[in-house]
Amino acid sequence: MIGHHHNPTSGQGPWAGIAPQAIRQNLLWLKRRLQHHAIGSRAAPVWAVVKADAYGHGLEHALQALDEADGASVANLDDALRLRRLGWSKPILVLSIWGLQAGDLCDRFLGELHVVVDDEHQLATLEAIRPATARLHAWLRFAGQLRSQGFAHSEYRAAFHRLLALVQSGTLIGAGHLHHYAASEDAQALQFERQSFACATAQLPGPYCTANSAALCGEGPGPLHEGGHWLRCGLLLYGASALPPSTGPELGLQPAMNLHARLLARRFIRAGEAVGYGDSFRAKRDTCIGTVGIGYGHGVPRNLWKKGSVLVGDHGRRVPLAGRVAMDCLTVDLGPSPAEQVGDIVTIWGSAPNGAIRPVEAVAHDCDTIAAELLTSLTARVPLVQVN
Amino acid sequence: MIGHHHNPTSGQGPWAGIAPQAIRQNLLWLKRRLQHHAIGSRAAPVWAVVKADAYGHGLEHALQALDEADGASVANLDDALRLRRLGWSKPILVLSIWGLQAGDLCDRFLGELHVVVDDEHQLATLEAIRPATARLHAWLRFAGQLRSQGFAHSEYRAAFHRLLALVQSGTLIGAGHLHHYAASEDAQALQFERQSFACATAQLPGPYCTANSAALCGEGPGPLHEGGHWLRCGLLLYGASALPPSTGPELGLQPAMNLHARLLARRFIRAGEAVGYGDSFRAKRDTCIGTVGIGYGHGVPRNLWKKGSVLVGDHGRRVPLAGRVAMDCLTVDLGPSPAEQVGDIVTIWGSAPNGAIRPVEAVAHDCDTIAAELLTSLTARVPLVQVN
Repeated sequence: MIGHHHNPTSGQGPWAGIAPQAIRQNLLWLKRRLQHHAIGSRAAPVWAVVKADAYGHGLEHALQALDEADGASVANLDDALRLRRLGWSKPILVLSIWGLQAGDLCDRFLGELHVVVDDEHQLATLEAIRPATARLHAWLRFAGQLRSQGFAHSEYRAAFHRLLALVQSGTLIGAGHLHHYAASEDAQALQFERQSFACATAQLPGPYCTANSAALCGEGPGPLHEGGHWLRCGLLLYGASALPPSTGPELGLQPAMNLHARLLARRFIRAGEAVGYGDSFRAKRDTCIGTVGIGYGHGVPRNLWKKGSVLVGDHGRRVPLAGRVAMDCLTVDLGPSPAEQVGDIVTIWGSAPNGAIRPVEAVAHDCDTIAAELLTSLTARVPLVQVN
Repeated sequence: MIGHHHNPTSGQGPWAGIAPQAIRQNLLWLKRRLQHHAIGSRAAPVWAVVKADAYGHGLEHALQALDEADGASVANLDDALRLRRLGWSKPILVLSIWGLQAGDLCDRFLGELHVVVDDEHQLATLEAIRPATARLHAWLRFAGQLRSQGFAHSEYRAAFHRLLALVQSGTLIGAGHLHHYAASEDAQALQFERQSFACATAQLPGPYCTANSAALCGEGPGPLHEGGHWLRCGLLLYGASALPPSTGPELGLQPAMNLHARLLARRFIRAGEAVGYGDSFRAKRDTCIGTVGIGYGHGVPRNLWKKGSVLVGDHGRRVPLAGRVAMDCLTVDLGPSPAEQVGDIVTIWGSAPNGAIRPVEAVAHDCDTIAAELLTSLTARVPLVQVN
């Protein structure tokens, strides 16, 4: 009918450029590091965590880059089905089966399915599956220091023996031990968590599934379990560091998302004039204010205005926000004689076209949050556009 | 294939209950107030602002409730087309035509289209339209104190005369004056903004389009322009107040969104034990921690954990968050002997099933932001479920 909306990069609204090639490189980066932590001759297999629509990057885009992953991990069974419909044929780890019934897990279309077991009710769900009707592996979650899900130390052994019985009866193909660290950015706390997990699982058969991006960004996965050891990798796949203040690029990772918008307007104002809602910016000098076509309705935190900055133009000149972020736009202080023109590209995080980078971790720091929140919080009004 | 995912309210994930009936009542509330501000015998017509997918409520749901609106206002032409495809036949106000070409505005399918004009380039776009090929009204935006878009005082009159020439040539059906307040919650600043606008438009023909929810929540629309005066109404349609600390319910409005999740787990912990990432909560007494199936990956701000609370159970008992919000879940302190069970409903904002209310404005206050950000920032992973 009309042509303008077929190319989201030419309109007034923002878009996220997604680079599967970066995800591929980040996975290779991890695989190389893991070769130093092999168990026998074999490096630990990796679950690529693609929950929350691949941390906001779009499952379709991320899947193209995961040839080297040994499996993919999602939050729920609906996302597992979506993975299969997209053609993913390797194992899938579903991080929660809460609310499901036995029959839900017996769909042949699900292929090799690994599920995390968090409570007595879920154990009973597995026990209600008729033997040999599912291709199912179960991982018992150790509640650890996070304590939000899974079994406490005192409950763990009895629960795991129920899984072992299901392996013996042929209902499950295998059973393992899963742990999610609460403080993997703190080496001492991490050591304590590992010891607690080893203590809870001592003498029990079955592989481990541990680690997360913070652990993998730091010293590596640590000592691996001789009985087999899968690692889970989320944030670092997408090129961000989970270990502030270091950033993904500083670690050798490639950010996989560039969040862009357009410079919609320029306006010269006088010293003393205000910009934005509630008198939130008042110019200290004559300057030029730029209006950028992205706002909190797209998922940019409104509180970015207090300390935030963006990159303007192909060269990615960094300029501060000026005034509160609105629903559809934000304003920046371009300075008294800007070279940038209306229509120029603006980079909220990621790379400007010529290569200047504003790491998402730095933006997260300006918003007093973490990179994972920014990446996963874009709304459906931000189209994902694949780039190479 | 499997049944569990057809009802989003029974799974592990959150959902937003949307009540078109509440939107309908809020519009009637406004219409009743406007009868005291009639111009001659006629109350001012109202644009129902449905940008950002009806402030996150879903355009399809909101449209069912807008019979009494005189028009609907969206951010861009794509959304105008979406409105028409959904069957909306009344006028549409498009708040930005940035990046469009003359031909884009001549699609007969667009019906009676009103567009906001922000700069010289957009004036030239309108001037490139062949007379009588569009059913187009233009509204010139006065930059005012917001200064992010539109024409400054010194540019305004010349620009408006160009629109008038287009009315005379038959390219436009009408031309009016549009203003967006920067500080409508401050009566004195609002008075100054109104005077500036009246001054910029003095002696010029054409109707006004002003007001916003903060102005309408407060003293009402203020003095209306004799030459015709459309009002724009966004946030209050959805039952939220734009005038903190008052809330929508306190003003007589009905919140149109209830954000719900499920209690996924309960765990008794000892005094001194920690919960959540980075030791962010440590129990001062023996207590029970509840895990709720919603997190920052759904659009709940991660910083809610610092001061936030939610309503648990049908009765909506208010309990504080305990520990940092995670991507897929958050944890709350249920107290030492909670009656609520795993599977119970949790209300993040809006009404618990029995009627206890946690106003979205209160949640916004706990996150140091505004209701509009919370409502518009839910991600695509939160299904919208219509309720009556």
